[in-house]
Amino acid sequence: MDLNKSNVYECWLNYKHLPHNFDDEYKRFCSYIVAKSNPPIINSALEELKFAFTRFMGRMPEVLDSYPDSDCILVGTLDDAADEALRVSRGDLPEDGFMVHKFERNGKNVLAVIGKNEKGALYGVFHLLRSMCCGKPLAQVQGIDGPRNPLRVINHWDNLSGDIERGYAGKSIFFKDNRIVSDLSRVKDYARLLASVGVNGVAINNVNVHQVETRLITDEFLPDVARIADVFRQYGIKLYLSINFAAPVEIGGLPTADPLDESVKKWWRDVADNIYKYIPDFGGFVVKADSEFRPGPFTYGRNHAEGANMLAEALKPHGGVVFWRAFVYNCQVDWRDRSVDRAKAAYENFKPLDGKFLDNVIVQIKNGPMDFQIREPVSPLFGAMEKTNVAVEFQITQEYTGQQKDLCYLVTMWKEVLDFDTYAKGQGSTVSKVVSGSLFRMEYGGVVGVSNIGDSKCWTGHPLAQANLYGFGRLGWNPELSAQEIAEEWVKLTFGHDKQVVDTIVSMLMASRDIYEKYTAPLGIGWMVNPGHHYGPNVDGYEYSHWGTYHYADWKGIGVDRTVATGTGFTAQYREPVASMYENIETCPDELLLFFHHVPYTHKLKSGKTVIQHIYDTHFEGAEEAEGLKEKWLTLKGKVDDEIFDMVLERLEMQIKNAIEWRDVVNTYFYRKTGIDDIHGRKIYK
Amino acid sequence: MDLNKSNVYECWLNYKHLPHNFDDEYKRFCSYIVAKSNPPIINSALEELKFAFTRFMGRMPEVLDSYPDSDCILVGTLDDAADEALRVSRGDLPEDGFMVHKFERNGKNVLAVIGKNEKGALYGVFHLLRSMCCGKPLAQVQGIDGPRNPLRVINHWDNLSGDIERGYAGKSIFFKDNRIVSDLSRVKDYARLLASVGVNGVAINNVNVHQVETRLITDEFLPDVARIADVFRQYGIKLYLSINFAAPVEIGGLPTADPLDESVKKWWRDVADNIYKYIPDFGGFVVKADSEFRPGPFTYGRNHAEGANMLAEALKPHGGVVFWRAFVYNCQVDWRDRSVDRAKAAYENFKPLDGKFLDNVIVQIKNGPMDFQIREPVSPLFGAMEKTNVAVEFQITQEYTGQQKDLCYLVTMWKEVLDFDTYAKGQGSTVSKVVSGSLFRMEYGGVVGVSNIGDSKCWTGHPLAQANLYGFGRLGWNPELSAQEIAEEWVKLTFGHDKQVVDTIVSMLMASRDIYEKYTAPLGIGWMVNPGHHYGPNVDGYEYSHWGTYHYADWKGIGVDRTVATGTGFTAQYREPVASMYENIETCPDELLLFFHHVPYTHKLKSGKTVIQHIYDTHFEGAEEAEGLKEKWLTLKGKVDDEIFDMVLERLEMQIKNAIEWRDVVNTYFYRKTGIDDIHGRKIYK
Repeated sequence: MDLNKSNVYECWLNYKHLPHNFDDEYKRFCSYIVAKSNPPIINSALEELKFAFTRFMGRMPEVLDSYPDSDCILVGTLDDAADEALRVSRGDLPEDGFMVHKFERNGKNVLAVIGKNEKGALYGVFHLLRSMCCGKPLAQVQGIDGPRNPLRVINHWDNLSGDIERGYAGKSIFFKDNRIVSDLSRVKDYARLLASVGVNGVAINNVNVHQVETRLITDEFLPDVARIADVFRQYGIKLYLSINFAAPVEIGGLPTADPLDESVKKWWRDVADNIYKYIPDFGGFVVKADSEFRPGPFTYGRNHAEGANMLAEALKPHGGVVFWRAFVYNCQVDWRDRSVDRAKAAYENFKPLDGKFLDNVIVQIKNGPMDFQIREPVSPLFGAMEKTNVAVEFQITQEYTGQQKDLCYLVTMWKEVLDFDTYAKGQGSTVSKVVSGSLFRMEYGGVVGVSNIGDSKCWTGHPLAQANLYGFGRLGWNPELSAQEIAEEWVKLTFGHDKQVVDTIVSMLMASRDIYEKYTAPLGIGWMVNPGHHYGPNVDGYEYSHWGTYHYADWKGIGVDRTVATGTGFTAQYREPVASMYENIETCPDELLLFFHHVPYTHKLKSGKTVIQHIYDTHFEGAEEAEGLKEKWLTLKGKVDDEIFDMVLERLEMQIKNAIEWRDVVNTYFYRKTGIDDIHGRKIYK
Repeated sequence: MDLNKSNVYECWLNYKHLPHNFDDEYKRFCSYIVAKSNPPIINSALEELKFAFTRFMGRMPEVLDSYPDSDCILVGTLDDAADEALRVSRGDLPEDGFMVHKFERNGKNVLAVIGKNEKGALYGVFHLLRSMCCGKPLAQVQGIDGPRNPLRVINHWDNLSGDIERGYAGKSIFFKDNRIVSDLSRVKDYARLLASVGVNGVAINNVNVHQVETRLITDEFLPDVARIADVFRQYGIKLYLSINFAAPVEIGGLPTADPLDESVKKWWRDVADNIYKYIPDFGGFVVKADSEFRPGPFTYGRNHAEGANMLAEALKPHGGVVFWRAFVYNCQVDWRDRSVDRAKAAYENFKPLDGKFLDNVIVQIKNGPMDFQIREPVSPLFGAMEKTNVAVEFQITQEYTGQQKDLCYLVTMWKEVLDFDTYAKGQGSTVSKVVSGSLFRMEYGGVVGVSNIGDSKCWTGHPLAQANLYGFGRLGWNPELSAQEIAEEWVKLTFGHDKQVVDTIVSMLMASRDIYEKYTAPLGIGWMVNPGHHYGPNVDGYEYSHWGTYHYADWKGIGVDRTVATGTGFTAQYREPVASMYENIETCPDELLLFFHHVPYTHKLKSGKTVIQHIYDTHFEGAEEAEGLKEKWLTLKGKVDDEIFDMVLERLEMQIKNAIEWRDVVNTYFYRKTGIDDIHGRKIYK
C-alpha cells in the first residue's frame, strides 16, 4: 500500500474526497473487514478496502475472518456467505455480478458485498467504494448489479520497442527495448484502475503485429507474458495477444499460412496448447487480417470466417476466443474512382459471412464505417450480423479527436453509438443490445476500447483524458448510464465534491466533443487532418490519397454522395427506416449531411444557415469555445490539485492554438475555394 | 585492379567502349607507361592507366622509370619532366592543372601528361582517358587545362546510423550502425569516380549534425575518419566534416558556445589542432548554423560572421577553411502573414556581413532563394557579396526533382545558374565568375554539390542519375562546357558510341528537366509536394505550414507577389536590369511568373495561353512525355547493358506513374478551384 503517489497518478482511486454523508452513512463500517476466505482476487478486493479505509479514517482497518463486536464490512463470494440469511441464490446474481446488502447481526450492522464469484466480489467492492466517495446514499447502493456486456476489453497498440501506435501518453508500460519490462508495479496499478471500472480483458500488444511481436506466442516471450497475466489475473482481467496471421510462415517455418492447411491448423493448435501451459486463463487472440497491408486468409483464397475459425478451433479446448477485426477495406484506392466507397467495405466483407463464424469468434467492429472520426454514422454492420458474436471497438486514445492535447470527452459519442437503433429486430434494436448479445441471444460480445494510456505521469497525457478511460469501463459495464452521470462520478472521485469544481469540469467535459467537432471537419465529412500523424488541419491532406477518404470539395460544393439514387449506395446497408432517413436529404441529420450527400455551399441546413456559413460560424465558435474552456479552468485555480491544474492548463493552451489553426486553415481554404464572404465580416485570411 | 565489377557499378570509368579513332590515334601509346617518381597520387594515376589500358588492349601495360624503345605515355609532375624540352614553366600551368603534349624522342612518340603538381597529373590522366574513350582527336586533347573553380566539393548528408538524409540510393558508404565502416574498398572506388571529374573535397557527414555525429571531431572517431581521409588523399581529395556549432556545450563541457568567448575559441582551436594530427591535409568544416532548428551564433547575440570567423581562426594555422551555409531563414512563419518572404532571408542575413568574414571562410549559397525547386530564380546573394568568398550549392541528390525515380538531368539547370548574369560589375558578371573568385578576385570559391550516391548497386539508385554526379564535377571543372557536351561525354563513356544509343540517351537527358517541370509545380511556384518526404503531388501540402512556402491559390488567381510595387519587395535584392525585369510582369519570364507575381488564372502568358490552360497543357504534355521517355528507352533493348536496361526501365515506369499522379492531382485541384474547363476537353477528374 503506497500512500505517497501523486494525485494525478492515482486517478479516480485516490479516496481523498469524502462526501457530506460519509460520517452518517459509511464511517461506521470502515474499521473492520470480515473475509472468510482470501483467494487472489478477493485479496485484491481486501487490499483496496484497506487502502481506501486508511485514507478515509487515517488508520488501517482490521481484517478478520470472523465477525467483530462492531459494525463491519463482509466481503466474499456466495460460498463465503452461505451461513448468512441473505436470501439470494446463485441464479439471482448475474455472471460476475454481486449483491450489496446491509443486515443486522447480534445488534451490529454488517454491510455485505457478496460476489457471484471472486470477480463479482471485487466489482462489488469497487462499486461500494465508488458509491461511498460519490456520496450516494447507502439505500441506493444496496442491491444487485452486474455487467451488461460479457466482454469489456482494452486493446493496447503497444509495440515491443516501447512505442505505442497512436499513443499520446508516453511509452508502453509493458514493453521496452524489445523486452517485457521487469518491474510490473505499474501494471498492477493499471490493473486496479481497469478492474475498478469493470474491464475484464486486456490485449497487450498492437494489432499491427510486427516482426518481434510475432514471437510473443513463443517460449522466448511467454514466461514474461505470463508474468503480466499473473498481475492482471489478480484483478479478474484476462490477457489477450494480438497475433500475426502469417506467423506459421514467419516464425513457424511452414511454407504456408493457409487456414485450411492441416499443418497450419496443427501449428496453431500447438501454439495455443503451449500458451495455456503458461497462462491457464489466457483470453485469446486479437486479429487484424487482410487490413492495411497485414497478412490474412485472402492470400490463400480463404475468407475471414475460414481464417478466424481456424484460430478459434485451436483456442476452443481451452476456453479462449478470437476477436477478429472487421476493419477491412481497400486501402489502395484510386482517388479518381468515385464509385469506390470505403464506408461500404466492412459490411460487404462480413455480412455475407454471418453465421459462418464459430461460436468463440467475436467480430470486432469499429463504431463507425470509416475510422474513429469525430463524427460518423454508426456502422451498418451492427444491424446486419444476426448469427455472429460482435463487439464494438471504440478508440479511447484520441487519434483523430485531439490526441490528448485537445479536450474531448468521448463518452457522449460512444453513448450515441450504443443508443443507435439498428432496427434489426424492429424498433429498439440498439447497438447496445446487439453487442451485449441480448438482441440475437449470442454468448459473447461486448465493448473493446483502444487504450489511451502510457507511462505518462497521469497515465493519459491529458489528465482530463482519464475520464475517457473511466467512462469506457463504466459504459461497458452499464450502457444505460448517461455520459453526464459518468462525468459526474469521475469528477467527484478525482477532484471531490466542491460544487463549482464539479459543475465546471463536468460542463467542460460535456461540451468538449461538440467544441472539437466545431473547429475541425464540418458536417460529418471527417478527415481534413495532416496525413500520417493525424494532428492539426490539412483540408486536402487525404483528398488525393489511396486511403479512400475524400470530401470532393470544389468551387461549387462538397460532400460524398452515398445515396442509392445517385451515389455509392452506402445508405442501403442500413435497415429501414434508417436507410431512408440518410438517403433523403430532407431527413438526413445536418451533422452527417456531408457524409451522405454532396451539396452546394449555398445549400440551406435545417438551422437555416447555408453550408458555407455554417462552416465559418462553427469554426469561429469552436475556437472561441476552446478559449472558453481555458477561462473556465482558470476559475478552478487553488480548488483542484496544483499539479493537475498546471498540466491541464498547459494542454488547454495547446488546444487553443490548435483550434485557431483549424479555424483559420479551414475558413481560408473554403474562402479561397468559394470566394464567398462570411456574412458577419469576421477575419478570414485571404 | 578488379576487372569483374558490373557495368552499372563501374559507371563512366568502365573503359569498355573504344571509339573509331582509337587504333589510329591512341593504341600505340597504350603498352608502356613511363613514370619517374611514384608518390601516392601519381600512383593512383598509374593504376588508372593500367586498368584502362588493360581493358583497351586485353593485356597489362608495362610501367617503367625510363623510356622504352617504343611509343609510350609519360606521366608526372613538372619536376619529373624537367629533363624534357617541354617549353612549359610552372607559371604556365593553372593551379592543379596539367599539360598534355606529344613529342618525339629518339624517333619514338611520347605522349606526356604533366601536372603542375601530383593532382594535376592525376587530372591530366583522367582527361586523357576520357578524351580517348570519347574519341576526341589527339590534336584537340593536347594543351593546357586546369579547374576554373578552386573548390569542387561534395557534401554528404550521411548520418552515422547509415541513413542518408534525402538519400535515394541506399545507405551510406561511410557509416553503419553509428560506426565508420571497416571495409573502405567502396570508398576508394568512389574517390576514383570523384577524382575523374575533378572533385577535390568531400564532407562526409550530414550538415544536420546530430548527437553521435557531433563526436566525429573527437579522438573516439578521428582514427576512423583519418582512414577515410587516407583513401581520399590518394585521389587528391580533401576530407571535410560538418560540425555542430553547439559542440563546446554538448561534448566539450563548456557552459556556452558563444563564438566570442575565449574558452570556446580555445576549445575549437584545440579541436582543430587535434584533427590535423590525424589528418594533416584536413579540408575544414561545413556549418549549418541558425537554420532549421540547428544551433548557431544567434543564441549568443552574435552574427554569422562572428560564428564563422571563430571557426576559421581555429583552422587558419593549418590551412583549413570554413564553408558557412547561407541557408538561413525563419522556418516558423505564420502562413497568415503575407509580408514575410522566405526568399528574402539569405540576402537579408548575409548581405550586411559582406566584408566581415575572414579570408578562409566561404559562404555557401544554395542556387536559388528557396530550396532546390525544379525552377527558381538564381539567389540574388551571388550578386551581393563583393568582399566575401562564396560557393554555389547545388543539390545533386534529387530531393524535389524526382528522387532518382524520375529522370531529371540537372546539369541544364546548373548551367543556367552559372550563366546567370548578376550585373554585379556590369554585364557579364555571371554567377560562374562570382563563385570562381575571378569577378571579385577572391581566393576561395567554387561549387558544392549534395551527394546523390549511396550503397545502391549503381551508386545513384537510378543508373541515369550517374550523369548528374558526372556533370556536377565536369561543370565545376569547367563551367563553359555545355550541358549537352557533358551529357554526350557521359553517355559515350558509359554506354559507348552507337549513334542511336548516344542520340537517344542524350535527348532523354536533355529533355528530362523540362518534362519533370511540366508535370509538377507550374511557372516557378514550386513546392506542391507531399510534406516530409517530398515525393509526389500535394498542391496544398505546404500551403498552411510554417515553412514559408506558399502559392496563395484561390478561386481567382495564384502566385506570390514579390514585387516592390505591391508585394514583398524581393525583386529589389537583384541589381538592375534584373530587378526591373522581374518586377515588371511584361518582362518577367513566363517560367518564373508565379514566383514573382500573383495573377488571375486568365492572365495571358507570352505564349498566348492563359495560366490555367498552361497548367492543363503542361501537365498533359509532361505525363505524355514521361511515357515517351519509356518508349525511347525501349528502342535501346539489346543495345545497352541488360542489367542497366532493366534498372532504368523499372525507374521509367515509376516515373510514368508519378507523372500521371501529378497530372491528375494538379489538374483536378485547379479545376475544382476554378471551374474552368480544359479548352481541349481532355480528361480532368472532377
